Amino acid sequence: MHVLVIHGPNLNLLGQRQPEIYGSMTLAELNDFLTTVAHDHGITIDCVQYNGEGEIINAIHDARSRYDGIVINPGAYSHYSYAIADAISSLDIPVIEAHLSNIAARETYRRVSVTAAACIGSISGFGQRSYALALRVLAERAEN
Amino acid sequence: MHVLVIHGPNLNLLGQRQPEIYGSMTLAELNDFLTTVAHDHGITIDCVQYNGEGEIINAIHDARSRYDGIVINPGAYSHYSYAIADAISSLDIPVIEAHLSNIAARETYRRVSVTAAACIGSISGFGQRSYALALRVLAERAEN
Amino acid sequence: MHVLVIHGPNLNLLGQRQPEIYGSMTLAELNDFLTTVAHDHGITIDCVQYNGEGEIINAIHDARSRYDGIVINPGAYSHYSYAIADAISSLDIPVIEAHLSNIAARETYRRVSVTAAACIGSISGFGQRSYALALRVLAERAEN
Amino acid sequence: MHVLVIHGPNLNLLGQRQPEIYGSMTLAELNDFLTTVAHDHGITIDCVQYNGEGEIINAIHDARSRYDGIVINPGAYSHYSYAIADAISSLDIPVIEAHLSNIAARETYRRVSVTAAACIGSISGFGQRSYALALRVLAERAEN
Amino acid sequence: MHVLVIHGPNLNLLGQRQPEIYGSMTLAELNDFLTTVAHDHGITIDCVQYNGEGEIINAIHDARSRYDGIVINPGAYSHYSYAIADAISSLDIPVIEAHLSNIAARETYRRVSVTAAACIGSISGFGQRSYALALRVLAERAEN
Amino acid sequence: MHVLVIHGPNLNLLGQRQPEIYGSMTLAELNDFLTTVAHDHGITIDCVQYNGEGEIINAIHDARSRYDGIVINPGAYSHYSYAIADAISSLDIPVIEAHLSNIAARETYRRVSVTAAACIGSISGFGQRSYALALRVLAERAEN
Amino acid sequence: MHVLVIHGPNLNLLGQRQPEIYGSMTLAELNDFLTTVAHDHGITIDCVQYNGEGEIINAIHDARSRYDGIVINPGAYSHYSYAIADAISSLDIPVIEAHLSNIAARETYRRVSVTAAACIGSISGFGQRSYALALRVLAERAEN
Amino acid sequence: MHVLVIHGPNLNLLGQRQPEIYGSMTLAELNDFLTTVAHDHGITIDCVQYNGEGEIINAIHDARSRYDGIVINPGAYSHYSYAIADAISSLDIPVIEAHLSNIAARETYRRVSVTAAACIGSISGFGQRSYALALRVLAERAEN
Amino acid sequence: MHVLVIHGPNLNLLGQRQPEIYGSMTLAELNDFLTTVAHDHGITIDCVQYNGEGEIINAIHDARSRYDGIVINPGAYSHYSYAIADAISSLDIPVIEAHLSNIAARETYRRVSVTAAACIGSISGFGQRSYALALRVLAERAEN
Amino acid sequence: MHVLVIHGPNLNLLGQRQPEIYGSMTLAELNDFLTTVAHDHGITIDCVQYNGEGEIINAIHDARSRYDGIVINPGAYSHYSYAIADAISSLDIPVIEAHLSNIAARETYRRVSVTAAACIGSISGFGQRSYALALRVLAERAEN
Amino acid sequence: MHVLVIHGPNLNLLGQRQPEIYGSMTLAELNDFLTTVAHDHGITIDCVQYNGEGEIINAIHDARSRYDGIVINPGAYSHYSYAIADAISSLDIPVIEAHLSNIAARETYRRVSVTAAACIGSISGFGQRSYALALRVLAERAEN
Amino acid sequence: MHVLVIHGPNLNLLGQRQPEIYGSMTLAELNDFLTTVAHDHGITIDCVQYNGEGEIINAIHDARSRYDGIVINPGAYSHYSYAIADAISSLDIPVIEAHLSNIAARETYRRVSVTAAACIGSISGFGQRSYALALRVLAERAEN
Repeated sequence: MHVLVIHGPNLNLLGQRQPEIYGSMTLAELNDFLTTVAHDHGITIDCVQYNGEGEIINAIHDARSRYDGIVINPGAYSHYSYAIADAISSLDIPVIEAHLSNIAARETYRRVSVTAAACIGSISGFGQRSYALALRVLAERAEN
Repeated sequence: MHVLVIHGPNLNLLGQRQPEIYGSMTLAELNDFLTTVAHDHGITIDCVQYNGEGEIINAIHDARSRYDGIVINPGAYSHYSYAIADAISSLDIPVIEAHLSNIAARETYRRVSVTAAACIGSISGFGQRSYALALRVLAERAEN
Repeated sequence: MHVLVIHGPNLNLLGQRQPEIYGSMTLAELNDFLTTVAHDHGITIDCVQYNGEGEIINAIHDARSRYDGIVINPGAYSHYSYAIADAISSLDIPVIEAHLSNIAARETYRRVSVTAAACIGSISGFGQRSYALALRVLAERAEN
Repeated sequence: MHVLVIHGPNLNLLGQRQPEIYGSMTLAELNDFLTTVAHDHGITIDCVQYNGEGEIINAIHDARSRYDGIVINPGAYSHYSYAIADAISSLDIPVIEAHLSNIAARETYRRVSVTAAACIGSISGFGQRSYALALRVLAERAEN
Repeated sequence: MHVLVIHGPNLNLLGQRQPEIYGSMTLAELNDFLTTVAHDHGITIDCVQYNGEGEIINAIHDARSRYDGIVINPGAYSHYSYAIADAISSLDIPVIEAHLSNIAARETYRRVSVTAAACIGSISGFGQRSYALALRVLAERAEN
Repeated sequence: MHVLVIHGPNLNLLGQRQPEIYGSMTLAELNDFLTTVAHDHGITIDCVQYNGEGEIINAIHDARSRYDGIVINPGAYSHYSYAIADAISSLDIPVIEAHLSNIAARETYRRVSVTAAACIGSISGFGQRSYALALRVLAERAEN
Repeated sequence: MHVLVIHGPNLNLLGQRQPEIYGSMTLAELNDFLTTVAHDHGITIDCVQYNGEGEIINAIHDARSRYDGIVINPGAYSHYSYAIADAISSLDIPVIEAHLSNIAARETYRRVSVTAAACIGSISGFGQRSYALALRVLAERAEN
Repeated sequence: MHVLVIHGPNLNLLGQRQPEIYGSMTLAELNDFLTTVAHDHGITIDCVQYNGEGEIINAIHDARSRYDGIVINPGAYSHYSYAIADAISSLDIPVIEAHLSNIAARETYRRVSVTAAACIGSISGFGQRSYALALRVLAERAEN
Repeated sequence: MHVLVIHGPNLNLLGQRQPEIYGSMTLAELNDFLTTVAHDHGITIDCVQYNGEGEIINAIHDARSRYDGIVINPGAYSHYSYAIADAISSLDIPVIEAHLSNIAARETYRRVSVTAAACIGSISGFGQRSYALALRVLAERAEN
Repeated sequence: MHVLVIHGPNLNLLGQRQPEIYGSMTLAELNDFLTTVAHDHGITIDCVQYNGEGEIINAIHDARSRYDGIVINPGAYSHYSYAIADAISSLDIPVIEAHLSNIAARETYRRVSVTAAACIGSISGFGQRSYALALRVLAERAEN
Repeated sequence: MHVLVIHGPNLNLLGQRQPEIYGSMTLAELNDFLTTVAHDHGITIDCVQYNGEGEIINAIHDARSRYDGIVINPGAYSHYSYAIADAISSLDIPVIEAHLSNIAARETYRRVSVTAAACIGSISGFGQRSYALALRVLAERAEN
Repeated sequence: MHVLVIHGPNLNLLGQRQPEIYGSMTLAELNDFLTTVAHDHGITIDCVQYNGEGEIINAIHDARSRYDGIVINPGAYSHYSYAIADAISSLDIPVIEAHLSNIAARETYRRVSVTAAACIGSISGFGQRSYALALRVLAERAEN
């Protein structure tokens, strides 16, 4: 099983940006962690990070025939990018939304995710584990 | 590690009620499944189900000194019970919200969870796995 | 045919509470009246009254295999209890909402009923007759 | 007792228009059914149908001295015609609103009826029976 | 100078309908009163009353080449008839809105008049005098 | 192919009313232009204009068995007439909404069309061409 | 009869400020005009102008025992000063609101007047005549 | 004089839960304090605490014939329980709402109390003194 | 201990204005009553009344170094004067908001107090006792 | 005449994505179809597709001096990209918005197009014909 | 060049009030600083401070013929005083709004300034420099 | 000191696009002007312009270790790009928002800037001077 992990805007600064919210792990360390987790589930993953809405849509499209699932953290785009939501809706492979922080407990505008509505489910609040759990769901679904 | 699983309103009808949304597993089967999952993580769990807002608050309070964490699915109360949110905020142990369905993709009033704002995080959309992942997070957090 | 009549919060005070709105008949008298009406339609009824949201959900659940229909007046819960609405949605038997007063003509928050959306229909504004008409509908539907 | 039944906009297409919502009975059949029901209650009825807001107001006005009550289905006008609501408020005879479908379960804009606020009560969701029950209420009120 | 007075929906019931709000003068008496007032200002008037939105629009259109001004009381249409507002906007002659009651002091939905936005001004709250003042304004404007 | 063109409120004043928004062509000239356009597409058309909401609903109903399609400009009714929207929904023939002006660029209340939601599509902003394009769509659809 | 005319904020600049909206007459000229109009109605008037909300409230209070009526133009305070509205509500003498411009046709926030709700009526859009008509209403009411 | 003190949801955790907001006094200590205060005013009190909306309604109902007044802190239910508000409205004895914290200074949803609207008044922000003042009001009212 | 009592707009009319809401005690009588109450608590008070927002802000500022606490009834300003709220926030001495009437039970716009958010607490609905209780709180706080 | 056709986000998946909404024609086939249509009108077209908001803005800017008109389908950006709207407003050449589906009949957030407000008009709901009609309008406008 | 600097409500407490937001400089020191800055730009300034809305309007009016520009910090009035906005709109000299704090980053109600809409521009967030920059703009504009 | 100036969407058209709003200076001229201004303050600047949200985020990120401050005009993104706001929040260097036009005086959606909330302050309405003042603030802050 082959999974694409898409990190959205500002996640390249992970570990440097507001560590009290997002933790001190860097994006490279997060990707290493996820690669190990994926390996334990018998999954291979590719990890990409984009700050642009269009680049994220491109990455979602490109995944259509090349991956068996996507784990995506659309960052702030979660709350207003209907274009990314449309891109997710256009896929047949399962897509799961993951957030490092618990978005339900932050600013009002972060409480609704329009992109999660196009995914099969979402996981928020557990730092790097949010991603790891998403990978696990994809692995378990594939087994059934 | 000892965890309380709280099923909220209407979950006693699991497997009978709207199986196209909630799946065909019964609550007893779900609890058996979770007991097995918990055992794999070295956790023991107790599972309760209540339809009343007050009963759920009581259960949360009672967990304070007797459990190391809570997994809760507040059902429809997620969207308006500030009283349950206050109960969760009053605990020092970690509480995780789990939903069988992807609430972001359903009726407008289900898109915001006021109880999730008082938890450390939430997981939605993966059927029984939503609960299992929540147990896993609690287990992993305890290890660190 | 066997029907459950569920009276929601504050209806135990019927006849004593704001008679200019709710009339002077007591709950016991209302239940006697409904028993007679039901008898005329060849129906037997059981009447219960609960002030708790959870108790009402329990009563709805218990009716699943024991009654052929429900007449419910959820009182103020009509306007915010998505949990009761979910309980009604989980039944296969017909449920009808009845209100003593004309809720469309009262405070703004009483103009929308979220529980009526889960019923097959609703009747408001005719005092005890609202319930009687609901029983009649259930009787007539059963005949067809 | 003499009652006017007013069918609002698009009800002339009954039986042809969206039968999954409104049923397969035509307006003529509905009127025949209601005439029979009325006869059983010792009532005579006249039935009219208008697509225009002004025509409905005229009909309500004309009923003032000629009928003992009105059963009205204002159709979509229920949700925005304050002019019809004003017309109903200007009468001394009882007016009851009836809807074939359960408006609480349809589009958001159909959940509030501004015309029902001017009636003595309303009945929704029981097809032709909604009207029949309204006639019954008028008959029973007249007896007391 | 020739002025058209347009009475909107339900004003034909003047004197009979809610006299505590609208007073006890009938429409015929009001028209007589206005004819006298107009005569004092050297104006001739025609008075019409319509319950239909379309009829009111027709009357406004017909006034284009036949009258030097309009006094209109659109009744409840004031609050939602953008079609009447468009009709008023299409005229070159002055149009003044008059209300018997003080609409600013009534239900929330009566506080904004969308038709007044298309008039040169509006007068509310003085019973029959609201109309008389409007006639006076038209007469005085014509003098300048 | 036989098509009905329905002009809504105030369109009888075309060419006279706010020509900076609606252009200088009169309704008669517009109808002549459309007859020619229709002829070029092998269509015959009838053109009607009504200021009343009820009249427009009547015209829509009458078109059911007599025309193969409708082009409608509901004018200001586009923004609040759920009754006209219901009438359109009750037809099996295609209905297209046309607007002379670009309603997306005007007052806030003109930005949403509730009647367009019941049509197969809409065209706004091209003056008389908006109607002509609508006729073309109907002709081309009939060919396939 | 003795009437107080209260000009609210910025009216001291009349004739200098935005003459395309408010006209070219100065406040002194307006007061002269009103004194003449009042004299014709057998009324004496005093005219005051204040920019402060508190000063306007003081003026309203002082009028209680010294005047038989008030004509007030609260300017921008019309749209948010509940304190002035309370002051008007505390009087037994009639208070009429007058506006030079047609506030229904201006910015959204000017379309609702919270102070008019406490008056017996209001007149907008006729320049200095708005005040003159208000004086006339007070004179005529006193005659009856 | 006999007064019932009703503590709503989560108040059983007083002293343990968020002491920076609610203080360090436990519920037992608060009740002891209130008993002493009441004694000073010549009042006897009973203190109950419930987490359930239905239980609180039951307690309010039971107080009808057994107490001369109620002091209630509905906690989070203050902001959405129209059912508790209805229960309070059904009593003839005075009911006063008391809050430990200053709810006007907390989250947006805590700024409006729907239950206070059914009480004779409310007191917020003074810790245990909020209750004590409420008892004092009841005592003083009884003296007059 | 020295306390300033600030009465806001329209309170100078106490006893004369809407006595069904505000009671029949005059402001002088209220101040006498409060002076006596204060004396009983060992407090001296000064009482001022202003109709102007700026005057109230001045009074709050002047109290900074001269008083040990403030009791304020901002009247209608409670609901929109962020400037008064800012003034209260700038003080180090305790400020308590008092209302004669139960503002939670009146017009919608009176249900939220923006000035109360800057106080330590508020008391509403008990007539002159609201102020007396506020004085008591200040006295008791000073003792601890 | 030279026209630029801009396809916005997710349109590269045309034919593959949600064919029940967007049809089965691919983007290449759509472009071929439009090239033929354009040729019939004596127009040459270039077709581009971008998923990024910035790329679309760039394409609009580049068209300023190189094309005589633009047909644009901004996809989901239609509903929130004020930046694209600004880009369109900065051009002197005509821009027309085209949508394959009838956006008025879909999710609430798709009912308002902020980009259409900057165009000369828009066409929605006719599949590939929406674009073809837009080309036709540009061709016809150029002829006049 | 002669400029008036108007400090709005609560700015007299500068240096004493919430220094974490507004800094530790007093109003006298701020005025000295601005006098020096002005002198460097060849400007003379007068500085006034008022807590009253009416006083600020008076000061704005008085500046009409006596100053060449105004720098104003309306404090909390920025967010609701349409009366001050009207006063600014009535001037021909340039007015600039200055805020010590970054109002975009504070409470929701501070994010929109209704008075800034009447100015030529605004500067927020730079403490005393906000004013100094405003003076500089006025000086530079005068040079051109 | 080294500062990055980021021009957002559509600013490349400066001088060509809506000069009545944005002035006639081109972007190259603006950058020259700013370079001179910066030089006067002893600052060196780099100027970039991007139409893409992602590109702007990239530029902000890249500035972290290479510049001592940023002046940014996010154009229309100011009003909805929470992603750019997050990027700004992730920096430790000061960021100032500058707008050529006075956004408080334009369309409703331009009145709130979500990106300004992440900056230290903002300057609007002074054309090229808005940027120049921002540079000055950065220079002066560095001196202290």
